[in-house]
Amino acid sequence: MPITARRVHLAQRPVGMTDASTWSIRETELNDPSDGEVLVKVSHLSLDPAMRGWLDDVKSYIPPVAIDEVMRAGGVGTVIESHHREFAVGDTVTGGFGVADHVVVRGKHLTAVNLDVAPAATWLGALGMPGMTAWFGLFDVAKAQPGDTVLVSGAAGAVGSVVGQLAKAHGCRVIGIAGGPEKCAWLTDELGFDAAIDYKQGPVHRSLREHAPDGIDVYFDNVGGDMLDSALRSLRLGGRIAICGAISAYNATEPVPGPAHYLSLLVNRASMAGFIVFDYEDRYPEAVAGISSKILDGSLVAREQVVDGNVDDFPETLLMLFSGANTGKLVLKL
Amino acid sequence: MPITARRVHLAQRPVGMTDASTWSIRETELNDPSDGEVLVKVSHLSLDPAMRGWLDDVKSYIPPVAIDEVMRAGGVGTVIESHHREFAVGDTVTGGFGVADHVVVRGKHLTAVNLDVAPAATWLGALGMPGMTAWFGLFDVAKAQPGDTVLVSGAAGAVGSVVGQLAKAHGCRVIGIAGGPEKCAWLTDELGFDAAIDYKQGPVHRSLREHAPDGIDVYFDNVGGDMLDSALRSLRLGGRIAICGAISAYNATEPVPGPAHYLSLLVNRASMAGFIVFDYEDRYPEAVAGISSKILDGSLVAREQVVDGNVDDFPETLLMLFSGANTGKLVLKL
Repeated sequence: MPITARRVHLAQRPVGMTDASTWSIRETELNDPSDGEVLVKVSHLSLDPAMRGWLDDVKSYIPPVAIDEVMRAGGVGTVIESHHREFAVGDTVTGGFGVADHVVVRGKHLTAVNLDVAPAATWLGALGMPGMTAWFGLFDVAKAQPGDTVLVSGAAGAVGSVVGQLAKAHGCRVIGIAGGPEKCAWLTDELGFDAAIDYKQGPVHRSLREHAPDGIDVYFDNVGGDMLDSALRSLRLGGRIAICGAISAYNATEPVPGPAHYLSLLVNRASMAGFIVFDYEDRYPEAVAGISSKILDGSLVAREQVVDGNVDDFPETLLMLFSGANTGKLVLKL
Repeated sequence: MPITARRVHLAQRPVGMTDASTWSIRETELNDPSDGEVLVKVSHLSLDPAMRGWLDDVKSYIPPVAIDEVMRAGGVGTVIESHHREFAVGDTVTGGFGVADHVVVRGKHLTAVNLDVAPAATWLGALGMPGMTAWFGLFDVAKAQPGDTVLVSGAAGAVGSVVGQLAKAHGCRVIGIAGGPEKCAWLTDELGFDAAIDYKQGPVHRSLREHAPDGIDVYFDNVGGDMLDSALRSLRLGGRIAICGAISAYNATEPVPGPAHYLSLLVNRASMAGFIVFDYEDRYPEAVAGISSKILDGSLVAREQVVDGNVDDFPETLLMLFSGANTGKLVLKL
């Protein structure tokens, strides 16, 4: 019996923030899954700051989403028909489904989800791409060591909240930057951060001088802009900055200024390196194992902000990421 | 018999470029050298872009020169009285003499100079701090590999000219950025650079697209500003930037913008690291041996621009560095 999928396509490239005109929502009859393919009913969609970058027609680490193409997105869903020997009807799986309520996908592109470890939404957060990003960025790129003072921006977000908790468990002193007193309280009271800086309350570099008078060893940057510059000013000898993202710049329509204090890298024999989580794909199991065990023993809090709705709610839900409305991983539950 | 030294002191901190009011030239009777000390008649003084930074009262990798202190400078000279067993009258030595025509210095702070390898001025250039900077920045910080495309700014300067030649000898493709057709011709015709970009002839990023259509693997930055930004735009996957200096910013009186294209580090999984040559002091002999052998077999051209004069000429000679007037290492011969 043919299945009709409701899907969100890219209608036109946004200038600045996305809006309704960016998207077109269409229904399409799916082909029956052929050999090696699986039909998935999507239950959860991932919303990621990186999505904004995928809409711009510029050379990047991944080709942009093409006009008329279904918007790229990770998801979790249930197998409702399978022509792949590793998956059975009823299995929970995760993969790059796009913004759709049903999808036919090759089984080799799917990963089985173990709901005994954590609920579906967590497999898009702490156990999904954001968790992988936190793990490899913190340990492989920034080379965080016990005793380091670690600063993370976007600390109440999907990646930042995991970065801070992993660093803390690793024996680091952890300072998070987030927007608003609730997020900051969550970081210190529930996630165990040593300090939180509310960037809405004044210049970050001043708070940083107060909370890290001796400077920072590691900065995990999700935000860019003024926060990166403040971190550079507070860098210690041999400091390491991991550039994960720059959410402050993603919707900019004017050129964004670079980090004016980059010469701090010279004075402090410090380094700044960018990374893309996809490069670590072969090693995801290592990170999943590490993070799972911390979730199971209660030492890592995985938090998702789950919005109930359907694919039509994707455009508006996405905007929550850029207004700072979410705490933890933002997920759309269909 | 007491010796009178003529020395250049810091009179006041400059705003922007140095001028006559920055300095005061004084004569001082030196104490006789005591046990372990040596009296040196200075023959050559080193002029370095880093000197400008030493005049600002800001936290840096080294304390600023204090008001009234003798200006810090490396030099070469001849021992005229020795109370240290490793040095005899007539020996040629190098050390941090300050801008002075005579100096009493502890023997343990001196290094013997072998004039059979190269003349005195070269021991302030390719075999001095600039050469050490080139060696460790290129091999240790930027990790240049055979086959890499290496870009260097300030390529006709003391450091850049050695960087390019070392990279070339290491099997890299080398592009230099310099100001003016004469310097560019020198790079390609005499030093064997594969290409030279005259930054005075138009936007560097355009020339770079022409000379390195597939991008660059290594950028050795002596200049900062627009050149750093252009290099970021041309960076390849896994590219490495070594931040050695930022001569374009040293005399700025306004805040200098940061590198707007720093997110190229993310897209390209690239890194940018600063370094200070003093950190490699234990390993200078390795670099001196490597560079000496290349000078002796003719594969490395060590060039100095030697200005004849006395210590009174230091203030004006220093300015040549910032107007781009020198090719190779700038030395004041007393």
